[in-house]
Order: sequence, then structure tokens, then C-alpha cells
Amino acid sequence: MSKPRPISGFPEWAPPQRMIEQYVLDRLRSTFELYGFAPLETRAVEPLEQLLRKGETSKEVYLISRLQEEAGASAGEGSLGLHFDLTVPFARYVLENAGKLQFPFRRYQIQKVWRGERPQEGRYREFLQADIDVVDRDTLPPHYEAEIPLVIGDALAGLPIGGTDGRLPILIQVNNRKVLEGFYRGIGLADPLAALRAVDRLDRVGPDGVTKLLAETAGATDAQAKACLALAEISATDPSFADAVRALGVTDPLLDEGLAELVAVMENASTYAPGLCVADLRIARGLDYYTGTVYETQLRGFERFGSVCSGGRYDNLASDENVRFPGVGISIGVTRLLGLLFGANALTISRSVPTCVLVALVDEERRAESNRIADALRRRGIPTEVAPSAAKYGKQIRYAERRGIPYVWFPGGDEGTGDEVKDIRSGEQVGAAADVWQPPAADLRPTIGG
Amino acid sequence: MSKPRPISGFPEWAPPQRMIEQYVLDRLRSTFELYGFAPLETRAVEPLEQLLRKGETSKEVYLISRLQEEAGASAGEGSLGLHFDLTVPFARYVLENAGKLQFPFRRYQIQKVWRGERPQEGRYREFLQADIDVVDRDTLPPHYEAEIPLVIGDALAGLPIGGTDGRLPILIQVNNRKVLEGFYRGIGLADPLAALRAVDRLDRVGPDGVTKLLAETAGATDAQAKACLALAEISATDPSFADAVRALGVTDPLLDEGLAELVAVMENASTYAPGLCVADLRIARGLDYYTGTVYETQLRGFERFGSVCSGGRYDNLASDENVRFPGVGISIGVTRLLGLLFGANALTISRSVPTCVLVALVDEERRAESNRIADALRRRGIPTEVAPSAAKYGKQIRYAERRGIPYVWFPGGDEGTGDEVKDIRSGEQVGAAADVWQPPAADLRPTIGG
Repeated sequence: MSKPRPISGFPEWAPPQRMIEQYVLDRLRSTFELYGFAPLETRAVEPLEQLLRKGETSKEVYLISRLQEEAGASAGEGSLGLHFDLTVPFARYVLENAGKLQFPFRRYQIQKVWRGERPQEGRYREFLQADIDVVDRDTLPPHYEAEIPLVIGDALAGLPIGGTDGRLPILIQVNNRKVLEGFYRGIGLADPLAALRAVDRLDRVGPDGVTKLLAETAGATDAQAKACLALAEISATDPSFADAVRALGVTDPLLDEGLAELVAVMENASTYAPGLCVADLRIARGLDYYTGTVYETQLRGFERFGSVCSGGRYDNLASDENVRFPGVGISIGVTRLLGLLFGANALTISRSVPTCVLVALVDEERRAESNRIADALRRRGIPTEVAPSAAKYGKQIRYAERRGIPYVWFPGGDEGTGDEVKDIRSGEQVGAAADVWQPPAADLRPTIGG
Repeated sequence: MSKPRPISGFPEWAPPQRMIEQYVLDRLRSTFELYGFAPLETRAVEPLEQLLRKGETSKEVYLISRLQEEAGASAGEGSLGLHFDLTVPFARYVLENAGKLQFPFRRYQIQKVWRGERPQEGRYREFLQADIDVVDRDTLPPHYEAEIPLVIGDALAGLPIGGTDGRLPILIQVNNRKVLEGFYRGIGLADPLAALRAVDRLDRVGPDGVTKLLAETAGATDAQAKACLALAEISATDPSFADAVRALGVTDPLLDEGLAELVAVMENASTYAPGLCVADLRIARGLDYYTGTVYETQLRGFERFGSVCSGGRYDNLASDENVRFPGVGISIGVTRLLGLLFGANALTISRSVPTCVLVALVDEERRAESNRIADALRRRGIPTEVAPSAAKYGKQIRYAERRGIPYVWFPGGDEGTGDEVKDIRSGEQVGAAADVWQPPAADLRPTIGG
């Protein structure tokens, strides 16, 4: 068979990159648990009708079908598709298991998702997301909307990325749908959602483009469009944005409610994580199901690539005729984030294997001896391999060198000479016993750098 | 929309079970890394032609297709399917990236796989596997075949499962394809592979069934079938099995080679993990691509459910016209293993959330105060939540009780009374400061029990 090739949109990290990814995921997971989020994984597939509830994303769904299935069975009643995010499956899970869950329910979920994007756009078709959500039954207090950015700030702040200027590596842009909808209504637009979707395209089509869109899709006059753009220009890292909004002279009860919520989010952020959040009134997340606070996140130095972590409050996603489960959540695009950082060589790792010590082999007949040494080191938590063959010591050392393994262990001789261990970076070689020797803490595991 | 329902074959663990699964996966991962295996994840999809190289499993493949794709495009040239194991994708990865990898290449891989099994059989259609493999270029020394069971023994030995009689929770059954093929050839069977597949069905069809199958598919006489069954009856926890095989009076060079390799595996296992392995000459793994040592694993107390961890040596899987990459590996069926243990209530966890402390709320206006306490506790690694609302303390305590959260923290009063923390299991309540208080180590994280 011919040499296999990569498939566009389905990235595969090499083992050193995968080790960095695991480091990042461990950091996310332990932070989420520190805030009391419980882990969940949902199945990779959902009924097509579940996936199409959002409508707008229907074009991105991958269907699955059994190879031996009767032809024509796919895309019919009971079809299954791969999930394209973790929010829709979570909402389904909550509805399905409501009787067994304790509310408010705080969960995190770290899984691959799939989107049938056109390959030529260079987008990922398989990628990893890390989500947190809080849902409650009937009502959800707004203080959860203020908590979400703090969790993300903690989770990502510890990564060895971002400048050396002491700034956080990310900036979370916060807005509130009620502010936008209330404002649009307040200036007399009959279809606030259409206006919101038009303003959402500001980055792509510019102010003139938005003005045109607002006229076409929301029936906005020039004056109304100007007001919409003036609102979108407001941004501040403290609660002063509210005064700027009020200075535009628009009044509406929903606008007031949204401003109060957004002020609360910004005040909380200023207290616990100064510099983490900015109130940015242009953020809309136009195509999604959000009803309150919305979040997007810029990775500093990579702003032009768009948001790496987005979400918001949704009141109607996990609801049926009888009961409502309003929620708020956010999703880190882990593959997207790492793809940017790997592309810029902004994350490095000190070796390409977990191994700390390579035990050399005197000759194949004495493998048991090297195995015993490895066993003793492993029992004390030191990642260890035994050399693959009794090649000359120079070749065995090169085996370690090529992988970045810092230490090579030489078993003692028959004449009673003791074991020795060599730091192959410095060349220093010292006597050692496998039941007591300890590498410096920094060498025990591969270290991640920026 | 109607209430969502489970999909047969796609299990979803509740959060407490997911926490147990994560504990198991952490244990597997750290053990694999202790032995120097580097992590890898491959994409979920492979070209159909890759997946069908094994032939026999073609009926289990799930194809994927874009919902908006032109009708009839699926199952054609360039079709993609979900991987049904991790060995075939790994072999593909090695061939694709051979130029960038260091050989021998030791990797572990923990991922979901999918099989389009018929739902009525109650089999999983989505499940998690944890694999380790070692591949080398051109040749692979047999000592790796002896190492693999030790890694698995270490990885699973620490789990709080199995009896209290001090025995390991698993028994790895080892055999060698060369023994079987050499033996069948030695007794004059022209198609050793057909014989191997017939004997592989011993558990399901019994000795008479195998005799019949051997006659039909391998042209075996009654005497030949009797010899095959005599071989299959041999099993021993030490290298004595070799004498029992030789006592059957069959000679063949491949048989000798296989016996020597199997003796080496058993000797190594006896040294480092007594009681972990048994040489069981009936193990064949008939449908797979193995060429040397083969492994199956019984979970003690659940023997009737079959193997929870299987693998072997394969010489021709990751090879093309120009180069061979022989390998050896094993795969833990994590979902299968946990499904059995969960079904028997053999694994428990001390609480249903990661949270160690719930900070109570005096009233909603004083949420900032409770937030500050939570922040101080989290900074010292103590998983903490703040109460969702300023309900009566009794209700706040019930919030913790229902989730198994062991501690409730009460902020001090305005009158200068200090904070107090209550162990809600014992009722003991003591004064505490958030910047120094430490729970007992056993309470910091949920603990897993047998």
C-alpha cells in the first residue's frame, strides 16, 4: 500500500506536542476541580434532531453510518451525527438525567468535537474543547456569570505563555445580550436579533458594511445605524463603560438590567483578577443561543486569529415543555489555542519522552541486572527505560541524547565496582545506588517552557 | 421536543463514575510514563482502505459523511471511517511519520474507539481503550514481549479491586503463535492458521465443536484434533509448561523458537511479578495479525466475561514495500473493565463532586466576603465552592450533604467573631482562618475504594 498521508483538518500532534497538550489539560482540569466543577464525558454522537436544534450549524454536521448498513438508511429517521460542540450534548444530558442530578450542577467536559467544514478554509475538522458550565433548575442567579471568567483566568494564567511583561496571557471580552437587545429596542429597531447579527460582523465587514447590513436586515435608518456603531465602539476595563452607554441617551428596561449584570461581572473581575476582563460592547456571538452575558477571549499576541475561548449565558437550551434549566458556560478551544502557540514555537518541552533515566546494558545476558535497576528506580517514581540492546556505550548514550533523556545509568562490574550515573548534558558521572539516588526535581519530568 | 433517551451501545458515566474513570486513567498514564512510553493521540478517522486492511472487521466500521455532502459520495473513493481500535491507526502513524520518529518507539495512546456492532448484542459501540506499543525498524528484540505484561501488572495492580486475599486483581494469559503454528505444522496440518482459528473457539463451542471445526476447516484427523486439544489444555504459572508441550512428542523448529520466547516471558514475569502471568496454550487471538507472543487478561471474579486486556506481537502490520516496523503491544479495554466493576458496585468514590469545602453565604450582599474565603482556600489547592444562595444555614448544609462535600465554612460575624469550619460528618465545628486551615489529606480529594 502507498505511504499514508495526513488528512486536511484532522491535526495530529507529535509526542512532544502531545506532552505539552497533556500539561495544559492537567492544568485546566485541576483548576476546574478547584472550583468544584465535576467531570463529565458524553458520547461522541447525538441524534441528528438534537444537533439541528440550532439550525444555523446544520451544514457542519458529520453523520455516521454502519458500513454494512442498508443503502439509504442514513440521514433518515434516527440518524446519528458526531457532536460539533459540547454545549448541545450537555444540554441534552441535563434534560435526560435531570432526575438524578443535584442542581445547581457544575460540570467540566474536555472532549474532541467534529465539524464538517470545507477543507480548503484551513479550519480544523476535529478539535479538542474544554468546557465549564453551571446549570440550575428554573432560575440561575447572575453571580455565576461573574464567576466563569475567573475560572478561565486561573486556568490559563499559569501557562508559560504571553509576554514577559507580567501581563496575563489572555484578555476576556465581556458583553451582555440584554444590553444590545435593550439598546436596539430603545432606538426603535423592531428586530433586535437581526441588528445583533449585523453588528456581530463588524470585524469582518467594517462600519460601512454593518451600516448597509443594518439597513437591509433590520430596516435601520442612518441615525439608528450610527447609534448601533457608537455602542459597539465602547469598551473599558472597569465599570465606567456603563456611563458611556448611558451617555448615548437610550433608555430601555432590558438595557438597564443588562448594564447592571455587566457591571457586576466587571466589578468581580476587577477585584479578583485585575486586567483579565474588558467590557467590550461589540461582542455579540450572533449565531448562538445566548440570552445574557457573552464572552470571547483574545490570546495576547494572537488577537488577529479571533477568540480562543467563548461562551455565555443561555436560558432556553436545556429546557423542554415542563422545565427550564438556564445555564452559563464557556469553552476553551484547546486545539486552536495550541495550534497558534505551536505554530509560533511559543511552547517548548525539555525532552521528547517521559523517561528520566536510561539504564545501560553491559551485555544481553545481563539484561536481568539492568531490569532490576530500572525496577528499583521506577518503584521510587523515576521514569526509566532499559537500553534496547547491548551496543557500545557510546551508541547507548546517543539513544538517550536523541530523546533528551538526561541520565544514563551504568551497572557496576563483576569485580564489585558499583553502579554509576552520568548526567549526559554536563558529562558529570558519579557513583549511585538505585534504591536511594534521586534526580533533581526539575529533571524528574519533562518541563514546559515558553 | 421529547425527552432525550440513551442510545444503545454508547455508555455515559455519571460524574462520580467519571471521577473513578479519571483516577484509573491517571494511574494508567503515570505507569506508562514510568516505563518511558510517550503519549500519542491519533485522529478519530482513517481512510476506509486503512481500516479494511484487516478484512475480518470490515463489518464493524462506522463511516462518516458530511450532512450536506452530495448523495452517494459516501463509501466511495476517499471515504473516512471512525477507527475501531488504536493499533491500526498507530501502525499508519508510524509509517506516515517514520522519518521523524526515534526507533525503537515506545508510545501509549488512550482514546475512544467505535464499532458498528449490532445493538441487540449489548456490546459497546463507543468505548475507551488504553494501549501501549513498542515498534522498531527492521527487527524488534523479543525482550519487549517480556516487558509488556509487567507494565500492565503495575498499571492495574494499584487499583482498589480484586479480593482481599492479597492476589493481583488480574491474570494475564500468555501464549505464542509460533508455538501453535509450529505444533500444528509438526503434526502434519497443512493450514496452521485454520487450525488456530478453530482452537480459538474452544471456549464457545467446546472440545467436540473444535474437533468438528478442525476436521471441516483444517482437514484434521481425529488424532490430529486430539493433539491440538491436548496442547490447548496445557497451562502453568512457571516455565514447566514447556516440558508438558515437549511430552506431546511433536518437533518443529518454529515450535522450538516459540517455546523459547514463551519461557523467557514467563521467567521474567516470575521474577518481577509472581502470580501475574500464566502460560495458557489455548490463547490464540485467532482473527488478528499477531505473529509471536499473544496476551489475554482475566479480571479475577469476572473471568466469564472474557479478556479485559489483549494484544501481542505483530511483524507485518506497520510495514510497506520498503521497510518493516515489527511491534508488540497490548490494549486495556477501559470501558469494558469499568463497566464490569460498576455493574458489580465494586468501585466506589467518597463524594460526587471534587469540592472539599462549601463556603456558606450570610446574605447575598456579603457574597464578596465568601468569595474571598473561597479564593484563599483555592490558592492553597483546596477545592472550594461558594453556596448558591443565602438560604438558611440548614439548607446550605444540605447542599453540601447531598454532594458528599465534607466541610462547610461559616464566615465570621460583623462583631469580630472569627470564621468557623464544620465537618458535617462528625458535626465538629472549630474556629479557622482561610489562609492557614488545612483539611486532613484524605479529605482533600475524593477517595476511591473497592
